[in-house]
Amino acid sequence: MANRLITLITDFGDTDHFVGAMKGIIARTAPAARVIDITHQIAAYNVNEAAFVIAETWPCFPKGTIHVVVVDPGVGSTRRPLLVEASGHFFVGPDNGVFSMIYSQTSIDGQTHKVRVLSNPKMMLGTVSRTFHGRDVFAPVAGHLAKGAKPAAFGKRIDDYLRLNLAQPEQLASHTWRGQILKVDHFGNLITNFQEKTFQQIKTRPFELRTSTQKIHRLALNYAETAPGELFAIIGSSGYLEIAANQASAAEKLGNSAGSPVELEIYMTPALRS
Amino acid sequence: MANRLITLITDFGDTDHFVGAMKGIIARTAPAARVIDITHQIAAYNVNEAAFVIAETWPCFPKGTIHVVVVDPGVGSTRRPLLVEASGHFFVGPDNGVFSMIYSQTSIDGQTHKVRVLSNPKMMLGTVSRTFHGRDVFAPVAGHLAKGAKPAAFGKRIDDYLRLNLAQPEQLASHTWRGQILKVDHFGNLITNFQEKTFQQIKTRPFELRTSTQKIHRLALNYAETAPGELFAIIGSSGYLEIAANQASAAEKLGNSAGSPVELEIYMTPALRS
Amino acid sequence: MANRLITLITDFGDTDHFVGAMKGIIARTAPAARVIDITHQIAAYNVNEAAFVIAETWPCFPKGTIHVVVVDPGVGSTRRPLLVEASGHFFVGPDNGVFSMIYSQTSIDGQTHKVRVLSNPKMMLGTVSRTFHGRDVFAPVAGHLAKGAKPAAFGKRIDDYLRLNLAQPEQLASHTWRGQILKVDHFGNLITNFQEKTFQQIKTRPFELRTSTQKIHRLALNYAETAPGELFAIIGSSGYLEIAANQASAAEKLGNSAGSPVELEIYMTPALRS
Repeated sequence: MANRLITLITDFGDTDHFVGAMKGIIARTAPAARVIDITHQIAAYNVNEAAFVIAETWPCFPKGTIHVVVVDPGVGSTRRPLLVEASGHFFVGPDNGVFSMIYSQTSIDGQTHKVRVLSNPKMMLGTVSRTFHGRDVFAPVAGHLAKGAKPAAFGKRIDDYLRLNLAQPEQLASHTWRGQILKVDHFGNLITNFQEKTFQQIKTRPFELRTSTQKIHRLALNYAETAPGELFAIIGSSGYLEIAANQASAAEKLGNSAGSPVELEIYMTPALRS
Repeated sequence: MANRLITLITDFGDTDHFVGAMKGIIARTAPAARVIDITHQIAAYNVNEAAFVIAETWPCFPKGTIHVVVVDPGVGSTRRPLLVEASGHFFVGPDNGVFSMIYSQTSIDGQTHKVRVLSNPKMMLGTVSRTFHGRDVFAPVAGHLAKGAKPAAFGKRIDDYLRLNLAQPEQLASHTWRGQILKVDHFGNLITNFQEKTFQQIKTRPFELRTSTQKIHRLALNYAETAPGELFAIIGSSGYLEIAANQASAAEKLGNSAGSPVELEIYMTPALRS
Repeated sequence: MANRLITLITDFGDTDHFVGAMKGIIARTAPAARVIDITHQIAAYNVNEAAFVIAETWPCFPKGTIHVVVVDPGVGSTRRPLLVEASGHFFVGPDNGVFSMIYSQTSIDGQTHKVRVLSNPKMMLGTVSRTFHGRDVFAPVAGHLAKGAKPAAFGKRIDDYLRLNLAQPEQLASHTWRGQILKVDHFGNLITNFQEKTFQQIKTRPFELRTSTQKIHRLALNYAETAPGELFAIIGSSGYLEIAANQASAAEKLGNSAGSPVELEIYMTPALRS
């Protein structure tokens, strides 16, 4: 119990004392807890991006891990601080939709998730600032969880937490959908919200993936089979369709970024490949 | 004792082997010590910025923590390496003023701090390079401290260590002071050296905060109550007056940066708000 | 054994879930292992740069450390995944030359290194993606090693692994050599592939170090003895000759970068300094 892991996702960047202050409070509260940085480079205030990153990260960790996500443009306002239990993991952060994909993931699995409002001041710092709940609320809550405090001790369950629709392409015609870019990764790959499991047909049928500037017809199996600089689609390691370029940035080539629209049309003519 | 925490603040960036080499030496010296990155993105050679970051960080950590700060333009010269004890914490780094705010903080508390010159070669690597004391001096010293070596074993106490004046606005008139920007944070907030505890009146009286390009009259309680893009003052989570902009970079709007001057005038006419 | 350290070097950057996913898989596989970030900012696909960084890092760590290096442009192709044992350390990564300097270092020491192909699926995730072997192959392998699995359990030894020549200046004339810039560090210092141990004469004889834009004749002992902005050569902390500028970026001054050529001529006339 005392050895629990705590992961951190924030938009705090890495130039300030913010993340260090959170780590200090965790160390003071739960000396044996180990803290693991996921990323502190979520684009400032970008709740959607943080929602995607935590959705990709938590399933890799062991049960019992405490995931702290602080992307919090509403800090100091009436937005509520939350503790979520889902699939044996704990999630701590603001009620601004940042856990929306976790709610979907754990619903799809047929499991339940429990959401509580953090309201017990004994689990927070003695003085809570209006601008830094990462240090004053979320870090000490994570520390107390790591030491074994029960979820019910942090606050009451609620059902009216905020959910955002992030991975739901809109159907435009019988075989055409409009989706969007969820995230541009470090290599310039554009991660769309078309999931492999929903759009299996792209693996066996011809298709056209349309961005505002290019049309893509190739689905590659790996990067190495493509030509340098070539643009192609690929099923990414997250199970989403991605637009990539061999040893180059697809985002630069396309001039697209997170939030950009993408259309997918699957041709139902006799398959050209199998 | 063997489980002591070691925090790291450097200007080494995150693209090289420098920080990894320090972590390796610590692991070799004190296998059970845990190392916590605060930041490695202090602007190159910027002792003032590092002095601010360590001052904000150390009070969050438990007693016994060892804080290593390597921002060291004088490496290889006659500048001395130091071990500071203050308020139950240890600080290891060069004698270039980087611990100035800690000297002030711990003096104000009525506590003492002890400063020693690191001079015992047994606590350093066998060969000390002229350019990388982070690896060759400060990392092994931190490791030996983490294993329980006594401060007196590292070298003699001194009193003539370097102190810089960082958080002392200059009084220009009866209710006007000239301060400066201590740091621009990741969000573009400008942290001034006006401390809430010294300038309590800004919370109850009208004031004017003058930068080289703008005048600010509003003190906000949180970010969410302001309009998108609005410039305002706010008491930051560090207890200093900050200049911020709602979901935007105040530093960009003002064209100001660390070291820029700021004037504060408090109007002693009947208060316009309470 | 269960307390083994695992270090990480990748070109994944710090904005995505990639590194976090690897840390999660390691935590699931080997809960007690401690993970240490070296850098995730290797230039994308730059195997040479990663080869230099791991060569500088591993000797600082204790024996038994597991070093994971994922700079892997050939992921998903026929390039093989490797486990290398050398000088009591373990190295895990792709067979693309990224361990070349380790092969040289451990050969020079008169020690052997053993190289194996990772082929045991029990040491990998159940499903291995075509684009993210960091998460699906290298992280679980590191975890199993940390838990004490024997190297022979991972796969067979091979001898035809890829070796690159990285630190071998070419002799142009009796006292003239052509080398290259191995890496530009965070401060803009240019690390050449001229090693102090091979070119001892630069410490006692006049020399000329020629880049495409400048000629340098001074060898400084430390940064502080030089004038602000001055360009000079210095024996860096890695034992390589570096081109540096006092509190400035030599890379910017010279317009040079990794891969740029450098010539060194040592003058065999009577020494002008001793």
